[in-house]
Amino acid sequence: MTTSNNETNQLTPTQRTQIKRLPKRGNYETQTIYNILDEALICHVGFIANNQPFVIPTAYGRVEDKLYIHGSPASRMLRTLTQGIEVCVTVTLLDGLVLARSAFHHSMNYRSVVIFGTATLVNDMEEKNAALRAFTEHVIPQRWEEARQPNKQELQGTMVLSLLLNEASAKIRTGNPVDDEADYDLPIWAGVLPLQIVAGKAINDQRLIEGIEIPDYIQNYIRNQPNTTSS
Amino acid sequence: MTTSNNETNQLTPTQRTQIKRLPKRGNYETQTIYNILDEALICHVGFIANNQPFVIPTAYGRVEDKLYIHGSPASRMLRTLTQGIEVCVTVTLLDGLVLARSAFHHSMNYRSVVIFGTATLVNDMEEKNAALRAFTEHVIPQRWEEARQPNKQELQGTMVLSLLLNEASAKIRTGNPVDDEADYDLPIWAGVLPLQIVAGKAINDQRLIEGIEIPDYIQNYIRNQPNTTSS
Repeated sequence: MTTSNNETNQLTPTQRTQIKRLPKRGNYETQTIYNILDEALICHVGFIANNQPFVIPTAYGRVEDKLYIHGSPASRMLRTLTQGIEVCVTVTLLDGLVLARSAFHHSMNYRSVVIFGTATLVNDMEEKNAALRAFTEHVIPQRWEEARQPNKQELQGTMVLSLLLNEASAKIRTGNPVDDEADYDLPIWAGVLPLQIVAGKAINDQRLIEGIEIPDYIQNYIRNQPNTTSS
Repeated sequence: MTTSNNETNQLTPTQRTQIKRLPKRGNYETQTIYNILDEALICHVGFIANNQPFVIPTAYGRVEDKLYIHGSPASRMLRTLTQGIEVCVTVTLLDGLVLARSAFHHSMNYRSVVIFGTATLVNDMEEKNAALRAFTEHVIPQRWEEARQPNKQELQGTMVLSLLLNEASAKIRTGNPVDDEADYDLPIWAGVLPLQIVAGKAINDQRLIEGIEIPDYIQNYIRNQPNTTSS
């Protein structure tokens, strides 16, 4: 349906991914899309079942040009998606409140990605393991190496689906509010209030073995920085 | 399709809203649902167009048992929804990373709401104005009174849709990781890393009139506290 243009590393917009309203906010660069996917923590998966739309939040991981979602084989969402139906996966990062002088021009700064396609069931154990690694490392880098990694039974008991990132677009708003010219004279504060996801103090599990310290990669967890090592 | 049970202020689960997997995470109390909607800032709107699912992030507001979304009359999403088609609106708050000893049992603490229904175009100017007030106050309480409020032209130029909150459910995960019994002896740190949305330092608009200070309600903005005044 679409192919990536290797010269510029841009995806070619399709009927579904072309940003029609406010086209200057649209972005089709794979690196931009990957950075948003790597920074966000959850996606919203949209699909049709019984002629009705469903939107379900879930975790995900990315390996190169594939997005992976996973869960129990009993999940209605995953079972429905294995039927090869169309899916729309959306990821949104909220970067700030845009406070204009007029209520009408209030807005938000955000970075979002919308992906279209059909999901593929991952049966290959090596790819499945790599996907599980991507889930964990996506959420908290360095965790995979420390955690007890999946055994064969767990691998088999997890359903993993992949979605090719070849029909996707990003939409980005940054910067100041844009007010009507006449409103700039009003004595009303205007500007941007930045928002970010911040980690609090880690809470020990009640059954933690005595003497185990909180690892540095958890103590110093910072989310709002695109993972530049995973492109 | 469903009615609220006034004695307990619970919504009756329907085929679509019943939490089937992990039913103990399901919650149908209107107050729980409203608190999640009031705390989150964006929703993901799912709908079907040309037999394909679309999931679009957008801002929203709530007034009693109605959720409002709005935008330009040129918006494909809004124009599609005015046709009375089924819509699914999902709101997700991410509260923490749940770090188990095994990679398999890693999870997230979250609070989400899924709403089903059909949207109604709001034409009444008074309801429209109340909805616009709700959008602004939802994002940043006290802003509406300070901002230049919409004039007739702006009200007419904004499309507002309402969605009745009578078929909805919340899903909530809290607390510690749950590991396999044998894994509790492993010398691996486990627990919860809380996450929250935090505001940074407000950035003045470049064209701000000299001498205008950042208002207290912006300086002291705190998001992760359910708005207990707006039930």
